[in-house]
Amino acid sequence: MEARDTLTFPQESRWNIDPYLPATVAPSSTTKKPIHVTLTFATSLDSSLSLSPGVQTVLSGPESKAMTHYLRSKHDAILVGVGTAIADNPSLNCRIEGVGGYGGENLTGQPRPVVLDPRGRWLLGDQTKILKLAKEGRGKAPFVVSSEPLGEENRKILESAGGKNIVLGDILDPTAPTTRLPWHTLLAALSKEGIQSLMIEGGGAVINDLLHPSHFSLVDTVIVTIAPIWLGKDGVQVCPEERVDEERNVKVPVAKLRETKWVPLGDDVVLCGRPIA
Amino acid sequence: MEARDTLTFPQESRWNIDPYLPATVAPSSTTKKPIHVTLTFATSLDSSLSLSPGVQTVLSGPESKAMTHYLRSKHDAILVGVGTAIADNPSLNCRIEGVGGYGGENLTGQPRPVVLDPRGRWLLGDQTKILKLAKEGRGKAPFVVSSEPLGEENRKILESAGGKNIVLGDILDPTAPTTRLPWHTLLAALSKEGIQSLMIEGGGAVINDLLHPSHFSLVDTVIVTIAPIWLGKDGVQVCPEERVDEERNVKVPVAKLRETKWVPLGDDVVLCGRPIA
Ligand SMILES: NC(=O)c1ccc[n+]([C@@H]2O[C@H](COP(=O)([O-])OP(=O)(O)OC[C@H]3O[C@@H](n4cnc5c(N)ncnc54)[C@H](OP(=O)(O)O)[C@@H]3O)[C@@H](O)[C@H]2O)c1
Ligand SMILES: NC(=O)c1ccc[n+]([C@@H]2O[C@H](COP(=O)([O-])OP(=O)(O)OC[C@H]3O[C@@H](n4cnc5c(N)ncnc54)[C@H](OP(=O)(O)O)[C@@H]3O)[C@@H](O)[C@H]2O)c1
Repeated sequence: MEARDTLTFPQESRWNIDPYLPATVAPSSTTKKPIHVTLTFATSLDSSLSLSPGVQTVLSGPESKAMTHYLRSKHDAILVGVGTAIADNPSLNCRIEGVGGYGGENLTGQPRPVVLDPRGRWLLGDQTKILKLAKEGRGKAPFVVSSEPLGEENRKILESAGGKNIVLGDILDPTAPTTRLPWHTLLAALSKEGIQSLMIEGGGAVINDLLHPSHFSLVDTVIVTIAPIWLGKDGVQVCPEERVDEERNVKVPVAKLRETKWVPLGDDVVLCGRPIA
Repeated sequence: MEARDTLTFPQESRWNIDPYLPATVAPSSTTKKPIHVTLTFATSLDSSLSLSPGVQTVLSGPESKAMTHYLRSKHDAILVGVGTAIADNPSLNCRIEGVGGYGGENLTGQPRPVVLDPRGRWLLGDQTKILKLAKEGRGKAPFVVSSEPLGEENRKILESAGGKNIVLGDILDPTAPTTRLPWHTLLAALSKEGIQSLMIEGGGAVINDLLHPSHFSLVDTVIVTIAPIWLGKDGVQVCPEERVDEERNVKVPVAKLRETKWVPLGDDVVLCGRPIA
């Protein structure tokens, strides 16, 4: 562990965010959905996640970065789509002071990385950061969720690092350009693995799909960081498919938040809220 | 004047915004640009101004609306593009308590509406709200800025309401689908009319053009309201043309702000800042 990697997120900022985190939600035995889902990401003012796919774009400042790692420490798992896994080769571990690998014992506070990879496009190898960190004891090994079992070699690399391939089956259309895994089935599968809180971090396709009215109610809380910058056209944008009120045949807003709180953080702002079902 | 139209913007919120307003900027005789330019608009989280052109979309809450009217009272003029004038038939007057027509004398505190209409597409008539308000003494008559003089009838209606056609000349390409008036020439022309502070409110095409690196330095301050809602694809988006660093041949951010302040206001947040030249 290198000390310079370690992040801290001050207590005064935690107060603002904590009411939106899974730990503070009393578990209810009657709730149908076993997992607390937090949707979180950082955008520019023009709602871009990055300048283009594969170009990692530093949007938010150090304070917001520390917040993201604080959030990670409060969730059992972090999920990204395979687009992000391939484009960014992300670490997806938690580097907040005191978690396992960063001053703490074992892997305490380290979330499980989960990659949504319906068609097994993510090729694992020596350069895969998530696997490296897992080997160094600085992060958990990933779950890769696919429709069909991963290829032999990929699965071996995954399993030898301590990871797991979760196969959902029932892929809808194997010829479609992208394949959307059904969220209900996915959450049920993760719950069976003991995951009770999930932080969904991106990228664009995954977020836009979750903002769709038929999925948004699966989300418990939303935490969006906005940086005072415009990235311009042709970035990876958070902008869901349009929604039409069929009866009146007019466009209507796609999604709204309630119980919102805006928290200035460094140069950025953090918006916390809950979906309006 | 109907009392229910009148808006108030509380003193505690004014403190936050005032450092970004023209009145607090000491006029300098050496400054090349005679006009303080404030760029201000309200977007959704996915950076849309409206669901589609011509569909007036209530984005921001009552507090942000009152702020907009407070801002209007602090500027000599408000500018919109002809797209907005046609789509919205806007009032563009100021309804904050105490200005002329809303408790105050004459037209004190009422800004001059300015419509950028290079090709004279805005047809004035009995239903034009800006003209109605001017006749009722609740707003100033508009300036319409065009490349060639307006048509005879339009100009007569405009002038009989007390308005004025400002002709800039040198239209670049009359066959182009839209015609961009050059900002330097425009600001010089407005300055000649005694306008020392200008608030630019929209719409999408005008804002995106101003965010372009070759124009953004004309802007002194930016005040953006963001509402916790996603409007979805195919709205009128604030998203400027992409910017490429020619030397390195990579995409770079289009525009950034400095001296930023995020002010939560009702359900919305207001971002104040100054362009990084
Ligand atoms: N600023 C931030 O907070 C942030 C965070 C994360 C990522 N990013 C950026 O986002 C970009 C990547 O985003 P992306 O849109 O290209 O890819 P993505 O959302 O990470 O992954 C999309 C892929 O996931 C699979 N998938 C499975 N189920 C899905 C579902 N229900 N909905 C949507 N996709 C599903 C599909 O794979 P198949 O195509 O194989 O069917 C789909 O193409 C990168 O540039 C990254 O830097 C930014
Ligand atoms: N939420 C908000 O704060 C807010 C505020 C204002 C407007 N809006 C919305 O914005 C929408 C209208 O936006 P819009 O993009 O269609 O039109 P717009 O920006 O209002 O007007 C664009 C037109 O202005 C003319 N123009 C002259 N000089 C220009 C320059 N330098 N740069 C750009 N345009 C110039 C061009 O006219 P020609 O085509 O004739 O050449 C151009 O097509 C409406 O839906 C309205 O509701 C929202």
